[in-house]
Amino acid sequence: MEHTQPPTDGRFDNLRLELRRGSVVLAVLGMLRTEQYGYTLRKSLTEQGFEIDESTLYPLLRRLETQGLLTSEWREAEKRTKRFYRLSADGEAMFRRLHEEWRLINSSLTGILGD
Amino acid sequence: MEHTQPPTDGRFDNLRLELRRGSVVLAVLGMLRTEQYGYTLRKSLTEQGFEIDESTLYPLLRRLETQGLLTSEWREAEKRTKRFYRLSADGEAMFRRLHEEWRLINSSLTGILGD
Repeated sequence: MEHTQPPTDGRFDNLRLELRRGSVVLAVLGMLRTEQYGYTLRKSLTEQGFEIDESTLYPLLRRLETQGLLTSEWREAEKRTKRFYRLSADGEAMFRRLHEEWRLINSSLTGILGD
Repeated sequence: MEHTQPPTDGRFDNLRLELRRGSVVLAVLGMLRTEQYGYTLRKSLTEQGFEIDESTLYPLLRRLETQGLLTSEWREAEKRTKRFYRLSADGEAMFRRLHEEWRLINSSLTGILGD
């Protein structure tokens, strides 16, 4: 039997995941500067290039809420009760700090990678 | 007793670490396109904004070598025997893939963060 596709490279998948993990949190915080419910948040993330499973997104939202970075509220929208999320005041401050951190990392990496 | 400094924010430290973890690997791969030994590698990383403990760097180098992404060789330099590291052919391919991944993440985040 011939391989018609290259075998999955677990090393790449792991390093890719490691590279994305922190960025997804920053992306979520950035998006929740504006209130959204889970479904539209996930849709926007996907559209922007951050595909994320529900089984990853919802635990992340719970974790960020437990840490006091998000607030959530059940409200009716489109005739259904949905849970809306947005940054708390602490979350806004955290977003600004992480955003600045991201700029620093970016500038370091640009220096090293030469582009 | 008064606090003269704000208490350390464990939430920020954790999220910052999460944001940096994957980038450090990319930085190390990027630097080891040119052969280096541990001390100069760590010095260059620090100078470029990636401060990293020896206790983090050396296990990372071992892990990347075990995965076949780096090769290393003991050689004399400055009258001492030092272990030199550089990318293997697999490591070069991995570096290119992760670099491209980084560009994608960057462009996604730039869209979301609006800068």
